[in-house]
Amino acid sequence: MGKRRRPRIVVVGAGFGGLWAVRTLAFEPVEVLLVDRRNHHTFFPLLYQVAAAEIEPEAIAFPIRGLLRRFPNVAFEMAEVRGIDPAARRLETDGPPIDYDFLILAPGSLAHTFGVPGVAEHAFFLKDLDQAVALRNHILSVFERAAREPDPLRRRRLLTFVIVGGGPTGVEFAGALAELIARPLRRDFPTLDFREVRVLLLEAMAEVLPGLPAVLSAYARERLRHLGVEVRRRAPVAAVGPDRVRLQDGEAIETATVVWTAGVRGHPLGAALGLPLGPGERVPVTPALQVPGHPEIYVVGDLALPEGPGKLPMVAPVAIQQGTLAARNILRALKGRPSLPFRYRDPGTLVTIGRNAAVAHVFGRAFTGFAAWLLWLGVHLIRLIGMRNRLVVLSGWAWDYLFYERVVRLILPSLPVRGK
Amino acid sequence: MGKRRRPRIVVVGAGFGGLWAVRTLAFEPVEVLLVDRRNHHTFFPLLYQVAAAEIEPEAIAFPIRGLLRRFPNVAFEMAEVRGIDPAARRLETDGPPIDYDFLILAPGSLAHTFGVPGVAEHAFFLKDLDQAVALRNHILSVFERAAREPDPLRRRRLLTFVIVGGGPTGVEFAGALAELIARPLRRDFPTLDFREVRVLLLEAMAEVLPGLPAVLSAYARERLRHLGVEVRRRAPVAAVGPDRVRLQDGEAIETATVVWTAGVRGHPLGAALGLPLGPGERVPVTPALQVPGHPEIYVVGDLALPEGPGKLPMVAPVAIQQGTLAARNILRALKGRPSLPFRYRDPGTLVTIGRNAAVAHVFGRAFTGFAAWLLWLGVHLIRLIGMRNRLVVLSGWAWDYLFYERVVRLILPSLPVRGK
Repeated sequence: MGKRRRPRIVVVGAGFGGLWAVRTLAFEPVEVLLVDRRNHHTFFPLLYQVAAAEIEPEAIAFPIRGLLRRFPNVAFEMAEVRGIDPAARRLETDGPPIDYDFLILAPGSLAHTFGVPGVAEHAFFLKDLDQAVALRNHILSVFERAAREPDPLRRRRLLTFVIVGGGPTGVEFAGALAELIARPLRRDFPTLDFREVRVLLLEAMAEVLPGLPAVLSAYARERLRHLGVEVRRRAPVAAVGPDRVRLQDGEAIETATVVWTAGVRGHPLGAALGLPLGPGERVPVTPALQVPGHPEIYVVGDLALPEGPGKLPMVAPVAIQQGTLAARNILRALKGRPSLPFRYRDPGTLVTIGRNAAVAHVFGRAFTGFAAWLLWLGVHLIRLIGMRNRLVVLSGWAWDYLFYERVVRLILPSLPVRGK
Repeated sequence: MGKRRRPRIVVVGAGFGGLWAVRTLAFEPVEVLLVDRRNHHTFFPLLYQVAAAEIEPEAIAFPIRGLLRRFPNVAFEMAEVRGIDPAARRLETDGPPIDYDFLILAPGSLAHTFGVPGVAEHAFFLKDLDQAVALRNHILSVFERAAREPDPLRRRRLLTFVIVGGGPTGVEFAGALAELIARPLRRDFPTLDFREVRVLLLEAMAEVLPGLPAVLSAYARERLRHLGVEVRRRAPVAAVGPDRVRLQDGEAIETATVVWTAGVRGHPLGAALGLPLGPGERVPVTPALQVPGHPEIYVVGDLALPEGPGKLPMVAPVAIQQGTLAARNILRALKGRPSLPFRYRDPGTLVTIGRNAAVAHVFGRAFTGFAAWLLWLGVHLIRLIGMRNRLVVLSGWAWDYLFYERVVRLILPSLPVRGK
């Protein structure tokens, strides 16, 4: 008799949910395969700083194989998952299929256009590193083009930046963009009249940072105004074109740059399960994070929609806690123990708005200003994976803070990347 | 009467030649316009380390506008020069034309395929940052594909790397690639059999590093062999295909990766002058670096072929000294003084071959080993532009040296860039 085969757990997605699931399963008597179509983990919370030319994209990426070296029972495959056959317990990929005993799906989310015409074709997004780099290259390119543009109308259009969505990503990027323009680009382009530059933040609802205490939203809005950002509330977008964005009230804003941060939806892999999806194309799961009818399939992170009252935010702490719980529940199932339900321990919310300012909603307390900003810096530096990445990010922040300099003002790659 | 217009000097290319020309013209009573199709200067000597996943591409790029801020009489335009009209003293660009009184052409060089079939379509190059990043992404991708490839022939093909050209770039990249494979990738891919990995360096001539003393060439060759590189001399390439390279003696080597460092030729802008070109499509110039018949046009760097005996290498020190001299000669002409002829002060040659080893030919002395390697490190760190770039590069080197780790093992951008 050969030795008994260890259960094989396949984890799809090397974001926060997938990585924390793998960490929990490391050194346990199971065989783990992590699958991702990229070879690196991305630290999403700092994507907007890549787009604002503050840090290089490599600084918030970490090679997955480097993370897994110390785990003897974990392997990695760079593959794109294209289908799921729950009956056969098999994943279809761009290469050989992958069999599993247990499956943890953590593919994350994509931008949600809500069907607004032109968004997919003309807007920029901040959901992955390629998009952040494309946006950085575009921003620097429109300034270069504006510097050569004699026609004032075309020049104003090139210098108008519209950010759609007043959530944390929109607010943080608007602040970072305004500061990039105010000092580094103003010094780079002495021949441009910077009164022609506009940064607008459009929020469909009554207030930015919805879900946070009103005092924090008001502070964020005031800080953005102080940085020169025109904050428009109750300004839903009707359509996006190559040269303008049109609001639902009929107003048209001429712009070459629309950044869409208005919403996210579950990754298309959720549909491959062949089950009805919930709001935002997310997969409804049991309190233990299992797919109904398939207790061997867990969904965690942005794609998961656990049943019950209360909507969970699509943020890293939820993914981390869910990835950990899904892995624990699998280990419990293997020992014949009952599953544990997911309970979110909210570590709070931190949103930074330019230098020296942030809003914090932590331990039920709301505070703002320099202390919140320092807390934001510390938390993000600690969470970042890789000592050298921390060094590189910290040096990018230091150059920005001390010299008002954005060190990565590079249009690179010079060749256009396919897709936006 | 208005004040007299200052002479306008246009410098094409922000490489070593163009930048040093601009520095020489700064604060002088002339108006200077620097033109480049990129918004950054690239530190070419470390391109091969970007391809070997040791440093991020941003670390060897520096925003041109940041360099020019302190020069009140120098402006920058990001534009692609498409034609030259010497009679009208005008450049055609992808935007409005640019007029000049004096022109310094410093566009550099491109890879030279020597008409070998398949090179342009199938080979990788190390002549700009996009190419270096594309090569890095490809190397990491073939390892990922090999890890999923059950067919041993296909796997061996994926794991065979052929570098064509035994000059400094080929030798330095071969050493860096061999060390990337030997430690970091061996740890990343525990399921691969590394006896299937081959790195070949093909040199058409009788010896690698031609032009250096024989003792240095022999040392470099031995070091490469020690690192596991198969060095083949007198092995000219007949053709490159998508899956193999064929030598002139008929041998075919199955490979998914051919890196072509066998030669360079002058930038196509040289042909736009409408004058006969010299060997390597370089522009013959007078000893004072002027185009015959057009004393207001100077050519410097890789594109220039000064008349007289002795062939100059196409390296940074030549470009720096020529850019400086061309600028000085323009300033002398404006004061009615005669031009000075170019005389190359050779600072020597340094070529590194993996850790702790380099060859140096400095002040007429040839030496090798750790001392040469330290000299290489120091010179390159000093020459690099930007304090933060130095910090980031130094940390990349430190991680490699101390932890045998290549920190930028990232396939990024994930989307393929158009062109190789």
